[in-house]
Amino acid sequence: MKKQKPLILVTNDDGITAPGIVALVEIMKTLGDVVVVAPDKPQSGMGHAITINSTLRLHKTKTHGIKEEYSCSGTPVDCVKFAVNKILKRKPDLCVSGINHGSNMSINVIYSGTMSAAVEGAIESIPSVGFSLCDYSHDADFSAAKKIIKTIVENVLKNGLPKDVCLNVNIPKLKYDKIKGIKICRQARANWVEELDERHDPSGKPYYWLTGRFENYDKGKKDTDVWAIENNYVSVVPTQFDLTAHNAIKEIENRWKL
Amino acid sequence: MKKQKPLILVTNDDGITAPGIVALVEIMKTLGDVVVVAPDKPQSGMGHAITINSTLRLHKTKTHGIKEEYSCSGTPVDCVKFAVNKILKRKPDLCVSGINHGSNMSINVIYSGTMSAAVEGAIESIPSVGFSLCDYSHDADFSAAKKIIKTIVENVLKNGLPKDVCLNVNIPKLKYDKIKGIKICRQARANWVEELDERHDPSGKPYYWLTGRFENYDKGKKDTDVWAIENNYVSVVPTQFDLTAHNAIKEIENRWKL
Repeated sequence: MKKQKPLILVTNDDGITAPGIVALVEIMKTLGDVVVVAPDKPQSGMGHAITINSTLRLHKTKTHGIKEEYSCSGTPVDCVKFAVNKILKRKPDLCVSGINHGSNMSINVIYSGTMSAAVEGAIESIPSVGFSLCDYSHDADFSAAKKIIKTIVENVLKNGLPKDVCLNVNIPKLKYDKIKGIKICRQARANWVEELDERHDPSGKPYYWLTGRFENYDKGKKDTDVWAIENNYVSVVPTQFDLTAHNAIKEIENRWKL
Repeated sequence: MKKQKPLILVTNDDGITAPGIVALVEIMKTLGDVVVVAPDKPQSGMGHAITINSTLRLHKTKTHGIKEEYSCSGTPVDCVKFAVNKILKRKPDLCVSGINHGSNMSINVIYSGTMSAAVEGAIESIPSVGFSLCDYSHDADFSAAKKIIKTIVENVLKNGLPKDVCLNVNIPKLKYDKIKGIKICRQARANWVEELDERHDPSGKPYYWLTGRFENYDKGKKDTDVWAIENNYVSVVPTQFDLTAHNAIKEIENRWKL
């Protein structure tokens, strides 16, 4: 009996027509049977949002030239829920999200639609990986990223992932031969110092754009993703969905004397 | 010199006029100086979403009869960012979110706007707590919840919280004298088995509602939040924003032989 090809679910947060997902689908086609379920519009910064107070639409598309591809009116997490519970006939062997146009290092993982889709895959017990290229340009060069992604996905398909863990992969904006290697890291402790950019509409009323400055509190720490990228490595952060601070349970019990 | 009263930031995800936040503000007024920055409409299920692709509005309101209260057009996390970076003159001593109309136990923490606001507070190094009452009714009885919340907040103001940790507090739908106590727990491993409820619009085109069935994989485990609530305890889960699966770093390094 012929071995079944891996079933690969592809999604993203930049929308189903973004160059990043086009590149990702191209690689995945060489590795298995691909199904795409991705947002019909940009969904950056949507984090782990789901659509519960309004309705969802799903449309067949022909962006990627494959049999099963759909655009969804919801968030990246909605897309994974749709795929798993409505579209796919069996649980996929892999869920990949991206390639995101821009970094999802450090604290950005929690705001990222790209990574939240991968985290939702992990919640569904699907080996899942989110990919980001540290280049915000629409016309970014994905050629080095494609080679890296192929290596990582082959590894995941062959060796699996630890239970309840997905991967957050960030790729530096470099030619392939300038990339020093792949580093498994932790997310750097960092934060956005926000500036609410105040403007005025034609009637004179104020409105705001969220913008800010990234502050890395783990500067120079070699075990972090930010260090890896700054030093020309691909960063791979094993990422979990259990938010329990397990070490804090005893500490709080002691402090509170319940 | 008179001791400064604690500065308390209040937000939620059900919107600034929801009975849950009205109850929460009433308690907080007895404990410190209160500033409210909350969404101008329901934002349930928004997770850690932020508004980066569109603009934000902020309006002064008079819902709670206090000097500093604002409704924001964005998500619960946007509200915390607005408060910290634009509205408050100093870092607050406490950030509380809720009282959510409905449970945020277990995996729900990751989809919850209520809890994401508390997590954002923790990212900003503010002691933060999200409160949920396990009663979805708009007319829920908050009287027991108010007593519990006062106890917990007094504890947090007095004893602080571990670094980079906020609290996810769920309160059972019971009279105060039926509540057995407060349990510090971990979040139960669980999932939503989704059903995409298909309907048809007047022109015959399909649309979908996300709905589902909660499946608890940790049934009967006494150290979980679901067990606590089912057994008439208040559950308190210490919750973190570092998504790194630290234990998996070595495991992946070994599997991948980089």
